[in-house]
Amino acid sequence: MTETARAIVLDRPVLAFPTVADFTIVDHPLVPPEGDGWLKVRPLYLSLDPYIGARLRGRHMGEPAPVPGEALPGFCVADVEETRDPAFAAGDRVVVEAGWADLAWVRSNTARQVSSDLAPSLHLGVLGMPGLTAWAGMTQLAKTGPDDVLTVNAAAGTVGGVAGQIARNLGGRAIGIAGGPEKCALVVEQYGFDACSDYRRDDWETKLTKAVGGGSTIHFENVGTGQLAVGLRLLNLYGRVVLCGLADHYLADPAAGPAMTAIGPIIGKRASVFGLVVYDFYPRWAEWTTLAEPWVRSGRLTIAEDIGDGLDAAPRQIERLMRGENIGKTLVRIA
Amino acid sequence: MTETARAIVLDRPVLAFPTVADFTIVDHPLVPPEGDGWLKVRPLYLSLDPYIGARLRGRHMGEPAPVPGEALPGFCVADVEETRDPAFAAGDRVVVEAGWADLAWVRSNTARQVSSDLAPSLHLGVLGMPGLTAWAGMTQLAKTGPDDVLTVNAAAGTVGGVAGQIARNLGGRAIGIAGGPEKCALVVEQYGFDACSDYRRDDWETKLTKAVGGGSTIHFENVGTGQLAVGLRLLNLYGRVVLCGLADHYLADPAAGPAMTAIGPIIGKRASVFGLVVYDFYPRWAEWTTLAEPWVRSGRLTIAEDIGDGLDAAPRQIERLMRGENIGKTLVRIA
Repeated sequence: MTETARAIVLDRPVLAFPTVADFTIVDHPLVPPEGDGWLKVRPLYLSLDPYIGARLRGRHMGEPAPVPGEALPGFCVADVEETRDPAFAAGDRVVVEAGWADLAWVRSNTARQVSSDLAPSLHLGVLGMPGLTAWAGMTQLAKTGPDDVLTVNAAAGTVGGVAGQIARNLGGRAIGIAGGPEKCALVVEQYGFDACSDYRRDDWETKLTKAVGGGSTIHFENVGTGQLAVGLRLLNLYGRVVLCGLADHYLADPAAGPAMTAIGPIIGKRASVFGLVVYDFYPRWAEWTTLAEPWVRSGRLTIAEDIGDGLDAAPRQIERLMRGENIGKTLVRIA
Repeated sequence: MTETARAIVLDRPVLAFPTVADFTIVDHPLVPPEGDGWLKVRPLYLSLDPYIGARLRGRHMGEPAPVPGEALPGFCVADVEETRDPAFAAGDRVVVEAGWADLAWVRSNTARQVSSDLAPSLHLGVLGMPGLTAWAGMTQLAKTGPDDVLTVNAAAGTVGGVAGQIARNLGGRAIGIAGGPEKCALVVEQYGFDACSDYRRDDWETKLTKAVGGGSTIHFENVGTGQLAVGLRLLNLYGRVVLCGLADHYLADPAAGPAMTAIGPIIGKRASVFGLVVYDFYPRWAEWTTLAEPWVRSGRLTIAEDIGDGLDAAPRQIERLMRGENIGKTLVRIA
C-alpha cells in the first residue's frame, strides 16, 4: 500500500519576499525509491531561516530558485522510520533536508545523526546551523575571550542570540541590537545580554553607545549596511568584525546593486573583517555541540522559539520571519 | 644675521583636489626658536604622497586642513645644519616634516635618523613611509609567503610597486593594475611583476583575470571601490585583502557619502580583510629597513622617481600626482 505524504511547494515563482500566497499544499503518493542509501523520515520540526528568503528567489550562494512544485529548501529534525543504510537504525533522530513535508525518503548521506535526549527543536536552532554559525564567527574567526565587548544585531534571533551568549559564557560582555521592546526584553532577560538597543527608536544609537561604554572589540553583523556603519563607529581600534548575514539585502531590489558599505571606517579602525559562510564549518559540528550541550543542559544557552503548528503553518511562518515579526527561532511543528 | 627661508603655502583653501593655483611662495626671515630640542635642517627632497590631497582638504584621519599661510604637510629628507639636541650631529641625515620649505627649524623628537650612504630620496619612497606601508600590509597583515598570488593596484606607485616586489622577493607572484601603457611597462620591466593590466583599456579585467590564472590569494587595495570589486572577484576562497588607501575617494565629493563597496563578496569569498594605517608601524621601521636595504643595494627593490626640480615645482608635482600623471614616486628636489 502506498502512503500519502503532504508537502508545501511554490505555487508561483517568488519575486519579492515570500508571502503566504506564493505557496500551495500538495498531497502525493510516497513512492519508495530504488536501491540502498535511503532513509524514510518523519519530520518533527521544520527550520525556517533568513537565507531561505533569498534562496527561494535564487539569490543565495549561486543556488537556483526552486521551481513551482519542487521540494523547498530548509532543514528538519526527523525520526527515521525505515532505513536502507546500516549506519542508521529505525528510531534514530536526524537533521536532514526533506522538503517542507510530513514524510519523505532522503539520501542517508545527507542526514546528520543527533542526540535524541534533548528537545528535538534544539537541533535546528542553538545546536543546529544557526548555532554553528555563531560558534564559527565568535570562536574561530573573532576568537572571542574574556576581555571582549561584543555588539551584535538581530540579537533576538538564533545566530545573534547565540553569539552573545557565547561571548558571555566565555567571560566577555554582549550588547545586542534588535527591533522592538519585546525582542530587546528577551535578549536581556532570557538570553542574559548586558544590554540591548531597539533600532526602531530614534535614540537607539545613543543608547547603544552608552551601553557599549569604552568601545567594542567585536562586531557581529547579521543585518546589513546601516547597522554595520554604527557597529564600525563603536568598534575600538584593531577590533574584529564578523560579516555573517545581510538579512536587509536578502529583501533588496536586485536592480539596486550589490550590498554596499563603508570601507573607509575599516581602514580608520584598523579592523580585521572576516567573511563567514557556515558551510565551511559543517565538518566541525561536534566541536560546537561538545561545547554547547552542557550550556544548554545547565540553562546557560537558550533561544526563544516561534513555533507554527502543523505543516500548513509553514508559509505563514516564513512570511513572519521575512517581516521580522518572529520572536526567536522560527520553526514549524510537523508531527 | 637672520637667514631667509622660502616656503610654499596655501594661497586659499583647497576645495576640490589641489591645483597649482591654490599655492603661493613666501620668503620669510628664519627666526631661530628658543630653548633646546631643535634642529635646523636643509631639505634635499620633499615627498608628495596621495594622502596629502585629502589632508589639504581636512579629510584625512581627522586632521584639520592647513590654513592659508601655514606650513604644509609632507615629509622631507634633510641634512642637519645646526643641532640643539645631543642625539643629533651637524651633517646627520634625517626624515622630518619641515613644511614645503628650503630651510627650517624642526623639533628634534619628530626627526628620524636615516643612513646617509644611500640616495637620499630612497628614504621617502622605498625605505620611507610608502615602503613601510607596503611592508606592513604584505608581511604583517597578509603574511605573504611563497605560495601567494598578489593583485595590487596603483602598482606603478611606491606602495603598490613595493608590495609586489615584496611578494616576489619572498617567493610569490605579483600581478599589478595601473593606468596607461607606460606605467604598466614600468611595473613589469623595472619592478619585475609577473604581469600588469592597464585599467584604462576596455579589456583590462579580462587581461587581469588571465594573468591571475587560478585566482589570487592576496588583494592589496590602494584605489577604491570599483577596482576592489574586481580584486574580490578574482580572490580565491579564504583570501586576504589589505585595505590600504582609497585614492579614488580622496577626490570624491563629500556630499556623495563615505567610501562604499560590496560586502557581499567578502562573505562569499570568506575573505579576511585588514584595515591598514601605517602610523601603527612607525615603531617598527627598523624591521623594514633591515629587510629592504639589502634588496635595494642588490637591485631587487626599486621604484621609479618622478622628480620636480626646485621647491617652486611642488604645486605642479602635487597636481600631477592628484591627476595620476606621475610615474613612480613623486618628489621635489629642493637642494
